[in-house]
Parts: sequence; structure tokens; C-alpha cells
Amino acid sequence: MLSQHYREMCNTPSVIRALSVYATERGKEIGYENVFDYSLGNPSVPVPEAFNQAIRDLTTELSSSALHGYSPNPGNPEVRRIVAESLKRRFGLDYTAEHIFMTSAAASAIAHAVRCVTAPGDTVLSFAPFFPEYRPYINESGAVLKLVPADTESFQINFDEFEKMLDANVHAVLINTPNNPSGIAYTAETLKRLAGMLTDAEKRFGHEIFLISDEPYREIVFDGAEAPYVSAFYDNTISCYSFSKSLSIPGERIGYVAVNPKAKDAEMIVPMCVQISRGIGHNCPSSIIQMAMARCIDMTSDLSVYETNMNILYDELVKLGFTVVRPGGTFYIFPKAPEPDAKAFVEKAKKYELILVPSDSFGVEGYFRMAYCIDTEKVKRSLPALEALMKGEYGR
Amino acid sequence: MLSQHYREMCNTPSVIRALSVYATERGKEIGYENVFDYSLGNPSVPVPEAFNQAIRDLTTELSSSALHGYSPNPGNPEVRRIVAESLKRRFGLDYTAEHIFMTSAAASAIAHAVRCVTAPGDTVLSFAPFFPEYRPYINESGAVLKLVPADTESFQINFDEFEKMLDANVHAVLINTPNNPSGIAYTAETLKRLAGMLTDAEKRFGHEIFLISDEPYREIVFDGAEAPYVSAFYDNTISCYSFSKSLSIPGERIGYVAVNPKAKDAEMIVPMCVQISRGIGHNCPSSIIQMAMARCIDMTSDLSVYETNMNILYDELVKLGFTVVRPGGTFYIFPKAPEPDAKAFVEKAKKYELILVPSDSFGVEGYFRMAYCIDTEKVKRSLPALEALMKGEYGR
Repeated sequence: MLSQHYREMCNTPSVIRALSVYATERGKEIGYENVFDYSLGNPSVPVPEAFNQAIRDLTTELSSSALHGYSPNPGNPEVRRIVAESLKRRFGLDYTAEHIFMTSAAASAIAHAVRCVTAPGDTVLSFAPFFPEYRPYINESGAVLKLVPADTESFQINFDEFEKMLDANVHAVLINTPNNPSGIAYTAETLKRLAGMLTDAEKRFGHEIFLISDEPYREIVFDGAEAPYVSAFYDNTISCYSFSKSLSIPGERIGYVAVNPKAKDAEMIVPMCVQISRGIGHNCPSSIIQMAMARCIDMTSDLSVYETNMNILYDELVKLGFTVVRPGGTFYIFPKAPEPDAKAFVEKAKKYELILVPSDSFGVEGYFRMAYCIDTEKVKRSLPALEALMKGEYGR
Repeated sequence: MLSQHYREMCNTPSVIRALSVYATERGKEIGYENVFDYSLGNPSVPVPEAFNQAIRDLTTELSSSALHGYSPNPGNPEVRRIVAESLKRRFGLDYTAEHIFMTSAAASAIAHAVRCVTAPGDTVLSFAPFFPEYRPYINESGAVLKLVPADTESFQINFDEFEKMLDANVHAVLINTPNNPSGIAYTAETLKRLAGMLTDAEKRFGHEIFLISDEPYREIVFDGAEAPYVSAFYDNTISCYSFSKSLSIPGERIGYVAVNPKAKDAEMIVPMCVQISRGIGHNCPSSIIQMAMARCIDMTSDLSVYETNMNILYDELVKLGFTVVRPGGTFYIFPKAPEPDAKAFVEKAKKYELILVPSDSFGVEGYFRMAYCIDTEKVKRSLPALEALMKGEYGR
């Protein structure tokens, strides 16, 4: 008999995916170049050629069993060492290979981290606006996601609401900075205050509260800034990283869990990830992809196009009278819709071939997300459509 | 607070892995070429060169986003179509892409299949001797593994015991043919009888009982035979395949779920696998590995060495007086130990630099497994050690 639980999950399709499918279908009718598809966060810039070269080199340099044989469960030991050394060099924490667990990108990293630090029934807090897939990552583990309402002024943390919700049943807090969908990077002040409150709560409640930090956009930061490194602010942090965005390889499914060396029982967490993997039949990422990534550990794709696109869009949105917080990174922007019902707005936008994502599934009402990981030329061509939408539908 | 459940799982280390570590350590002392390491099922023959060539070609033929971009959740559509057509061509079932879900090899395929067709508390039956990782795949899903005792005469199915255990709470049966650790392939007669009993039980209990068929050794069959294709015998079958052994790429983590097109609600199972993946943060295998595999869909590595090794070992074991069933496939052989305590026997074998795996963790007592996926030259050099072990310890 088929599982009723998973059968029912099939009835909650992703809004983002549905819009992406719509954009593709519409593209077949009018030419995809004429659809201003801001739906999906799929990197538009190419992988560094060094990554493809590394793949080719590996197929000739290594023996078949060295290249394609089993990795140990937590990942290739040499690759883990290279990841640890890079993190240590960049962020000053004493990582060693023992703190690194290779994963199928950030999705798998978060799913493992949540299982490590919660028991069924425990609360995990996250902050709106949030990436909607956190729901299955957390709820399917047996823990329960609760969402702290957004600070829509700045999209930093709404600490008043957080304080109210931070009770004894909270065992983990999941953050994402720079943030999908808001594009905002938490400031050092935000992270300090968050760490302080967590440390106090740990004392008050007599148990650890782990901070799970989802960091796929860590390398996509604007204005020459660097996003503060979360784990440096709070010892009980588990960083969840993905190379999907920094190297433009989302299909290759590679990332890692990095346990802060000062976390409580830090040395236990990677072995526990191995046990979690055993139960779900997940083993580490492709061996050749692990090794190719390690050869490009401190590289990124040319990510500058995202900042170019952001500036063009931000200026136009401000010009058109949108309320919008300027993104500090990622390839998303999250303006306020010109009417309270974001879904209605997004439907109207379709008439102008603009594919936007309503904010409801991100845990905030009345906003919309634009994923501007598309060609700059197309961003520019979309501006008259945005203008026509505002004039035609809202008389602005 | 760290999860007590996963923390405790860390205390049940794998016997096989421990023996493999011992073999590696011992190799550092006396030279690994002098350790007759029969512990691990790690393929020894190289990948077909066409696979490495496909990888290299893909890095130059495809654009970055076509090659390294997100696959849809169930896998690359073209790859799924190629898998379905190959299965249809080879085994005559009407597979289409909609029946194929790409996975991180067989481990992930089984973990998904179990979750699709059981609810927490349901019984899954499997047959001793069995692959010990079935325990976490099943028990961590919330279902409960129960083991049907072995038919040690033939290592086919012990139908008397199976009949006793096939009660109304059984919602899935998990088989593995050709079998790890016995090396035995189920005959067509065995599969017919199994299918008949399952069909009867479905009627009697008023619900489906799915057959989950773990098939990583499907292509490693001896004496010019073909292993009967399980799904052809029983409609409610989910085949779980891995390319780890057939293409010698276990580190690349690629396989699939193939749902029998005639299974009850066949079209629901792949979408349900997608939902299961969402909850565990597993997405499909590496995109370049999917595409390279598809270009080699009907190839295998040169698997003949396994048959050569089997014949050498089988003849020697018989000569030395072991009770042993001749394997029909895989790269395992499963003789009876010369004393009832297999662990004691395996300890004695270490003195002769023979690394064997005791049968206890496979659900049978008093046997041992040899994984002969090693060079034939080393198999030959190990024969005097086997002989010395029997003479020195058992006076034979």
C-alpha cells in the first residue's frame, strides 16, 4: 500500500516550480527570450573553466579505483582536509577534516544538521522571509519548524518576536544569510545580538541551542563587502554550505557541513551525520566532483553580473515607487507589491511577460521575489515591461 | 543538545568496515600485497574507458548550465528515458521515463522504495543471509525489518519460514538477487513461487505487498547465464539498481528506482520519491555522472575476472573440505566455517593474513564471506594461506 503521508505531500506543489514551468511553456509560444523569467534561482554564469579542466585531468591522472571507488562515508579524507584548511585560512576557526562532512549540497547539509541537534517534537526556529524547503527538511525529521515574523523594515532579525518565541523547547535556530528571498546579509551587530540571546537562553534552559547556518550565498556579496562569518559569532554553530551558487554547479550536488570546532561535542557531529546518512541511503557526493571541487576550493565563478543586475533593478524599482530594501548579496530582490495581495499582483505581471514569485510561501504576505540570475541584457529589456505593468495596472 | 538516537547509532560500528581498516593497517606493516583482504565489496576492475571519455566529452560539448545546472527532482529527463528504454529492450516491460527515479545508487533507491510502500510500524520481510545495511534503511524509516531464516542448503528462499512470517502486517518484501553475501541467484522457480505467495497474501490481507528488489549484481552472473529479472514475475515490484558494480563506479553514487509499469498506482511512486527526497535533502545524482552513465547505458566493465576468481576459490574450498554453495553471480562466496563460531574462525584466519568476514551480521551463524573482487594473482597467492589455516588450526 502506498504511503498516505508521501502521497499527500505530492498535493503541495511548489509555487516557484509552477511559475518556472509556466515561463518555459510561455517561452514555447512567444520565444523564451521574450519571457522575463525571474522565477528560479538557477545560476546563470558559467562554471570556472578550471573546474571542467580538473574533471578532465582527474580522468587521466588517477586510477579507476582511486577516482571512482567508494569514498569513506563522511567524504574523501583529502577533500575534507582541503575544505577545513580553506575555512581556517579564510575565517580563522580551527577546523580540521574531522569537522567536515561532505553532502549533496546545502539541502542535505541542513537535513543532516537538524537531525543531529534535535529530537522529534523539538522546535526549530527560523526567520521570515525564509526558503520554503526548510519546511520539509525540518518537519520530516520529526522536529517542528516555527517561523519568527519578519522585520520588514530591514529584513534583519525581528528580535522582539524572536524573544517571545525562544522557549525551552527550542533546540535549534536556522538562519540564512545572505538571505533567499530578501537578498539581505545579516550585519555583525545582528549576529552578535543573536549569539548573545542564544547564549543566555542556553543558560536559562540548561541545554544547547544549535545555530544552523545555511550559507550558499556566502560568496555573493555586493559593494566589495564580505558577509560576516556566522560561526565566528557563536560556538554552537553548524555551517551548511553549497558550491551550487559559488561555482555554478547546482546539478552536481556538492556542499558540506562544517562543525564549529568549539561546539559542544564537536567531534561527535560528523560521526552522527554518517549514521543519519545510513538511514536515508544518502552517501557522500560523487567522488570525481569532490576531487574537482577541491582543486577549485578558493575559486568562484565570475559573480559580478549579479551585482550589476541588482543595481539596475533596484534603481528601476525605486524609480517606479516600489518599497524595497537594497540587497547586500545573493541574486534575489524582495520588493513590496503595489497591492496587499501579492498573488494577484504576480498574476497581473504575467500579462507583461514578467514572471515574479509571490512572497506567501516565503512566510511574508504582500511582497514578491525576483531572481535576477539572468543575462543583464534581459534585465534591461524587462524594465519597460515593469514600467508598463505599473502604469497599466496601477496608474503609476 | 545532540540527538541521543544518532549518538547511540555511532556505537554500532560495521564489522566489515572494521575488518577493512584492520587490513589496511596490517598492510602498512607487512605490505598490502601480503594481506589477503577479502573484506570489502569494492569493485577491482576498471571503469570502461568510454565512461571517462564521456565525462571529458561532456565538459566540452555542453554549456555550463546544460551540464552543471539543476536536474529536475526525479533526475535528468533524457537520462530517465534512456534508462527506461534500456530496461524495456532488455526485459520486455513497458517502462517509460515516468517509472524511473534517479538515486544515489542502490542504498538510496531502497531507502526511498521502503518509504513509498510502508507506514511506520509496518513489517518489511527480508531473507537471511542479507546485506546488513538493510537494517538502517528500513528501521530508520519507521518500518520494522524482520528476517526470514536462511535455507542454508541452497541459499534460495526458505519458504516454510517465509509462510509463517507472512502476516497481515507485512507491506513489503525486500530481496537481493544475485545475493550479497551468498553469491546465489534466485532461480525462476524461486521467483515464481515467491510471486504466487505474495499474490495470495495480497488477496488474503486485502492490501498490496510490494516486492523491493535490490539488484546491484544483476550484471554479474556466471556460466553464461542471465539472472531472471525479478519484476517480470510480480507486478507490484520496485527494482533498485546501482551502477556501482556493473560500471565499477561506487564512488560516483548513481542508480535508480524502476517501478513496474503494472504496479498498483505505478504513476504515483516516482512523485512520492520526490517528496521523500525533499524531506531528507537528497536530490538526484551528479548531473555529469547521470549523463556519462546514459552514454554507457548498456556497457559494463570487464566483469569476467570475478568468475575466474570464483572458480579458483570454489575449487580450493571444496578441496579443503569446506561446505560451500557454488555462487551463481556477484563477487562473494559464503562457505560454512569449520567451527560453529564464525568470529573465532575469522580471528584465527588473521594469523594467516586472511581477512574474512564472519556471517553473524548477515543474519546467519557459522559462515563467512569472502569478497573476491581482487586481482586473480592475489587470489592464487592466498590459496596456500587458506590451506595453512585449515592444517594449522583444524588439522585438516
